[in-house]
Amino acid sequence: MSLSVYLAGQIHDDWRDELKEKAKVKNLDIKFYGPQENHDLSDDIGEKILGQQPGAFYRDDAASSINNFRTSIMMQKSDAVIALFGEKYKQWNTAMDAGIAIGQNKPLILVRPESLIHPLKELSNQATATVENLDQVIEILTYYFE
Amino acid sequence: MSLSVYLAGQIHDDWRDELKEKAKVKNLDIKFYGPQENHDLSDDIGEKILGQQPGAFYRDDAASSINNFRTSIMMQKSDAVIALFGEKYKQWNTAMDAGIAIGQNKPLILVRPESLIHPLKELSNQATATVENLDQVIEILTYYFE
Amino acid sequence: MSLSVYLAGQIHDDWRDELKEKAKVKNLDIKFYGPQENHDLSDDIGEKILGQQPGAFYRDDAASSINNFRTSIMMQKSDAVIALFGEKYKQWNTAMDAGIAIGQNKPLILVRPESLIHPLKELSNQATATVENLDQVIEILTYYFE
Amino acid sequence: MSLSVYLAGQIHDDWRDELKEKAKVKNLDIKFYGPQENHDLSDDIGEKILGQQPGAFYRDDAASSINNFRTSIMMQKSDAVIALFGEKYKQWNTAMDAGIAIGQNKPLILVRPESLIHPLKELSNQATATVENLDQVIEILTYYFE
Amino acid sequence: MSLSVYLAGQIHDDWRDELKEKAKVKNLDIKFYGPQENHDLSDDIGEKILGQQPGAFYRDDAASSINNFRTSIMMQKSDAVIALFGEKYKQWNTAMDAGIAIGQNKPLILVRPESLIHPLKELSNQATATVENLDQVIEILTYYFE
Amino acid sequence: MSLSVYLAGQIHDDWRDELKEKAKVKNLDIKFYGPQENHDLSDDIGEKILGQQPGAFYRDDAASSINNFRTSIMMQKSDAVIALFGEKYKQWNTAMDAGIAIGQNKPLILVRPESLIHPLKELSNQATATVENLDQVIEILTYYFE
Amino acid sequence: MSLSVYLAGQIHDDWRDELKEKAKVKNLDIKFYGPQENHDLSDDIGEKILGQQPGAFYRDDAASSINNFRTSIMMQKSDAVIALFGEKYKQWNTAMDAGIAIGQNKPLILVRPESLIHPLKELSNQATATVENLDQVIEILTYYFE
Amino acid sequence: MSLSVYLAGQIHDDWRDELKEKAKVKNLDIKFYGPQENHDLSDDIGEKILGQQPGAFYRDDAASSINNFRTSIMMQKSDAVIALFGEKYKQWNTAMDAGIAIGQNKPLILVRPESLIHPLKELSNQATATVENLDQVIEILTYYFE
Repeated sequence: MSLSVYLAGQIHDDWRDELKEKAKVKNLDIKFYGPQENHDLSDDIGEKILGQQPGAFYRDDAASSINNFRTSIMMQKSDAVIALFGEKYKQWNTAMDAGIAIGQNKPLILVRPESLIHPLKELSNQATATVENLDQVIEILTYYFE
Repeated sequence: MSLSVYLAGQIHDDWRDELKEKAKVKNLDIKFYGPQENHDLSDDIGEKILGQQPGAFYRDDAASSINNFRTSIMMQKSDAVIALFGEKYKQWNTAMDAGIAIGQNKPLILVRPESLIHPLKELSNQATATVENLDQVIEILTYYFE
Repeated sequence: MSLSVYLAGQIHDDWRDELKEKAKVKNLDIKFYGPQENHDLSDDIGEKILGQQPGAFYRDDAASSINNFRTSIMMQKSDAVIALFGEKYKQWNTAMDAGIAIGQNKPLILVRPESLIHPLKELSNQATATVENLDQVIEILTYYFE
Repeated sequence: MSLSVYLAGQIHDDWRDELKEKAKVKNLDIKFYGPQENHDLSDDIGEKILGQQPGAFYRDDAASSINNFRTSIMMQKSDAVIALFGEKYKQWNTAMDAGIAIGQNKPLILVRPESLIHPLKELSNQATATVENLDQVIEILTYYFE
Repeated sequence: MSLSVYLAGQIHDDWRDELKEKAKVKNLDIKFYGPQENHDLSDDIGEKILGQQPGAFYRDDAASSINNFRTSIMMQKSDAVIALFGEKYKQWNTAMDAGIAIGQNKPLILVRPESLIHPLKELSNQATATVENLDQVIEILTYYFE
Repeated sequence: MSLSVYLAGQIHDDWRDELKEKAKVKNLDIKFYGPQENHDLSDDIGEKILGQQPGAFYRDDAASSINNFRTSIMMQKSDAVIALFGEKYKQWNTAMDAGIAIGQNKPLILVRPESLIHPLKELSNQATATVENLDQVIEILTYYFE
Repeated sequence: MSLSVYLAGQIHDDWRDELKEKAKVKNLDIKFYGPQENHDLSDDIGEKILGQQPGAFYRDDAASSINNFRTSIMMQKSDAVIALFGEKYKQWNTAMDAGIAIGQNKPLILVRPESLIHPLKELSNQATATVENLDQVIEILTYYFE
Repeated sequence: MSLSVYLAGQIHDDWRDELKEKAKVKNLDIKFYGPQENHDLSDDIGEKILGQQPGAFYRDDAASSINNFRTSIMMQKSDAVIALFGEKYKQWNTAMDAGIAIGQNKPLILVRPESLIHPLKELSNQATATVENLDQVIEILTYYFE
């Protein structure tokens, strides 16, 4: 009954640790995957491995090729995807990951504050379930194991 | 050799008409699909068809179910997707549509200004091609027919 | 922009003719598919083609093999499925067809009266859109072409 | 040679426990999945997690989004689906789950009493095998391991 | 509503012409595909195109590579497959084509005489429908268009 | 590096035991699946579970529904299929299983005597590899692990 | 019965025109797709559309993104792929296109001189058919229409 | 978090051992698959198992059928593919394997020296990431586990 879950979303705070901690408290048998959370490393990884690039686009493209290699594998290994949106940041990465999950029939939980109902309405409607906070995510995951 | 193309992106200005006009000038044999561009209608369509809803979330969920029915069919009928991002609006819909295209192996052109290189880097890297404006889109589509 | 739509549901009244008539009034370019609506023929088709069968199960199995051949092809040729439920009849066929549409990522509109909200709740939630009557179906299909 | 099996069907009696007990007696190495069997919890789970909803449709839609998240994952993890129908209840959920299994090529056993031959004839014909009771299910599962 | 149908089976008599004639009499809008019916040509096509081969296996492998190129395309273009078995010939080709149709979810009609019920039982059970002669095939195809 | 392999073919002699013994001698880490090898049980299983049937066709259809349930699961769990043909028996089951493997991109080894080159030529050409005896199968499987 | 065929291979001589001419002589109803044959344009298209790039890698990556957009769509629209290899040039593009065809179950004809048997042996074995020259390709395509 | 990776590329030197050693030093939990690296065995395996063949083409076709059986299984069991190109050898096998990975959505790392940028540009653009040496591969794989 164990589960593999990919955690899509911003990497500017420790929401993933918080979620993992809550899952641990509930003794949920879940393996969590997620993007590189060291933001500087995530941005630098292209130049770090491939050497200095000749401009912003090339630097970002190099980094993202390596991030995408990592994410693609993890998404394929996951039974479900949780995509969290907050009021800060553009978060197009998160929306793209949610779209990939939808396009590949991966069950998807959308987490977003009430203030973002309108701009996320089509995504919410295509997600399997939509909630507003991490405690609700844990309640759904707990329900999976009941 | 005719092509069907879905135009994902904001519906606040007439960029689709502009693109269609440019394609017409070049005599490109393309059938364009896209979301409902009447913004009010797109937001109201749920209540218009299903009756008044008891709050913002429900109103938006009703509208988006009908928008998603429309978009899902059109995406499946399209040979390629063009996703345009600009500096205004949240555009998570656009990123989700691009993600669905990626998840379903639909060739995808990303259009975004230079200023958005960084926040769209992973999406750009997974898109088939990335350009900065509609003239470049037309050049690619013209190249398809050459 | 033409559409192919499979109409799943009971064959005891002429709701399909009604829907086709409404679509015609609106000039919608739609090709409708649906099950055999001659109920006796639908039940007899197995024995009619394969000869008398040795009991109810065998008679029904023979008929349904031929009905399923017909439906499978039509579902594969359709861009979308409309599944109508009413207060009479068991309608497990309709729910199965809706499930096949869900399992194969076919956009699906569920039509059911308010009284059936509860027993159809999981199906409604997996359908692309849910409405209560044929006029609403026509409004969605009209919206597709706008 | 171990097997994962999803048990679709009503949750008003303990038929799943009965089946599991019979499998245990036969020492069959099977992991059984199934829907939430606490009926009240299954109906309340939406409001329990998402808060009070403004009406029956919204309450049911909230609950079913979470039930569908659970079921979708379990169906994907299962090697086969067993769908049981009885003379009571509407059981459209069961027919939908069976349809999803058919649409996704999951081997499917239909269990239904003789009295339901006619209304389940198309479903029976598309199922991999059809039986009338749980003992017959166990005989098939035992045969799998022989 | 037009249909494309692949006719799998032996090429020693003119059963395909007979079926096409019957379909023509009924005015059925069907495009029929099938294997090369000139038996000598079908056997010789490898050496005819690739030159003399150093033995029976190589001669047959060369011919079948070209026959398979032809059949693979036609099967993919067909909405359904009809597989006819008779009392003569090994007909493993026919059974393989039927298996490919099953493996790819192509609706399949099996045609076989009563004398072959037993050796074709698993194939019959996986076919969408089973009949005994070409008139019955025409009745099913006619029913499709009703 | 362990492998799961389905052994398609006749069940009239003990070729599967012979193959398993040879694999054991070579210490190959392979889990073998295969059809029910008790021929009487395989033919009787339908009536044994579902009760007496009203004729040969119905008896065979009942048995094969249960055999197909078993085989479908095992084929899906296998990394590769080995299909053995001999000079006796009709073996349409074997050809169908090979066709399903081809239709689902399952690597396939065909085993057949030289005398059957011609009637199996299209199947041989679509198989991943073709050999003449079980020792050669073992050599290929040994090569997989080298 | 019309066919769509993608012609993968080098763009340094006019072999595609030669093949099209031969097909025309035979009155074959085939729509041919292929890569951009203006070699300079194919190499320059990235900088032509996206502006000057900061080095060889970036220039080539820009061009190939646009070439891949073109090719991906054409491959998806084709019923079959013909991949031609000669003694000159690296032709990794051709081998990649052939691999994509294999990975997506697109029927594939390999054309290569006798001198390249050894280095193309695994590709030849996975192709649907292998020949040595364009006349043989035309013979296969003619056979398709017979 | 363990990974399975197929190593496509030439078998003339020990680059795979080098990569495995580097992965071991980093304690990466990776199972590596790859082609038969004993070059003589890889070329001889067809005749070794199937007996002497009547010429170069037949000898190579026999060997490659067995190599392809091996590779197909390993590719399906792998989470990602690494394809290495060098300045020697034709390496069409490597390009074909990379193409299969692309066609089947398998994450792909291309490794090639700077001198091969141009002839591998379309392949590089379709690969998930491109690097120039094995140390960079190890850095990406290490990053996957971080």
